[in-house]
Amino acid sequence: MEALKQRILKEGKSYSGDILKVDGFINHQIDPELMYQIAREFERRFSDVAYDKIITVEASGIAPAVMLGLLLTKKPVIYVKKRLPSTMEDVLTTTVHSFTKNRDYPLSLSRQFIQPDDKFIFIDDFLAYGHAALGIIDLLSQAKAKLVGVGIVIEKGFQNGGTILREQKNIRVESLAIIKAIEENKIIFSD
Amino acid sequence: MEALKQRILKEGKSYSGDILKVDGFINHQIDPELMYQIAREFERRFSDVAYDKIITVEASGIAPAVMLGLLLTKKPVIYVKKRLPSTMEDVLTTTVHSFTKNRDYPLSLSRQFIQPDDKFIFIDDFLAYGHAALGIIDLLSQAKAKLVGVGIVIEKGFQNGGTILREQKNIRVESLAIIKAIEENKIIFSD
Repeated sequence: MEALKQRILKEGKSYSGDILKVDGFINHQIDPELMYQIAREFERRFSDVAYDKIITVEASGIAPAVMLGLLLTKKPVIYVKKRLPSTMEDVLTTTVHSFTKNRDYPLSLSRQFIQPDDKFIFIDDFLAYGHAALGIIDLLSQAKAKLVGVGIVIEKGFQNGGTILREQKNIRVESLAIIKAIEENKIIFSD
Repeated sequence: MEALKQRILKEGKSYSGDILKVDGFINHQIDPELMYQIAREFERRFSDVAYDKIITVEASGIAPAVMLGLLLTKKPVIYVKKRLPSTMEDVLTTTVHSFTKNRDYPLSLSRQFIQPDDKFIFIDDFLAYGHAALGIIDLLSQAKAKLVGVGIVIEKGFQNGGTILREQKNIRVESLAIIKAIEENKIIFSD
């Protein structure tokens, strides 16, 4: 998605440890026009995939998921919590590892909002090692629901999450910008 | 807002400790049509207030803030982080207390995205004791910006946050549903 790539080149900031910061337009301050275009692009890429609901992980996946689900497709959006809530009923949980933050954290989802055979698309801002997406696959399979698509705003193509997810059968993976390398303040895209 | 109140009566669940759960349509699974109506109602109520940006706190404020800011008013949305991020530049912080979770947590905001004299509306899902809103007022005043409005989906009118905020000068407070009391599985609204 060209507008996104141009914005990353213009305003993204790269740091040692392969860190890319996009907090001026994606995940701290959100640019309304760009986020709308992102949602439109997800809508277009998943237009031939049948799905019932959208799932994401708090907090930075919520904005693109809400834009896609609430604005464009009128599908319910569920955001998985990164903790074990004290009052959640009928909780499904799994543990995922964040390499960025170097710690494990729980993901929690209430089974109340999942019907067996529901088809989900998972939306998130970043894909690196794919642990959040694998956590979502685990949670949905516990509820006998299915993940049929993964929509990512920015994929770190030099980490292996994209490869792992694309090896799964029957999951469409769409990343709007794939980064091949982050070199000395230089961001290189895959295509 | 009648549609919201009816939905709370129909699907909200009350628990001891004055807890109201709305995770079937507001803050775990989000109903697209209701959230759109919520954003439209915020837009209407703040139509005579001049503001530049929308601010919220991760995670449950993001959906209504995004709907208002990105869909309807095309204003940037900033979501304050509930932690001290390792890579955030020029960070402003404050500490707020959550009575619901009975602990203190930091709120972090990058000064990069705030211009002096910027006018903000703070959007959140719940208002109870008002500590999150007071934290936002503190953060914005550190950056010499102003809070001119507070838009709340559900206010617990029996707790004192609404009173504290309405005593502040030049801040418009709009709550779409104000709950007077939670009694034995019964939810009573103020009006």
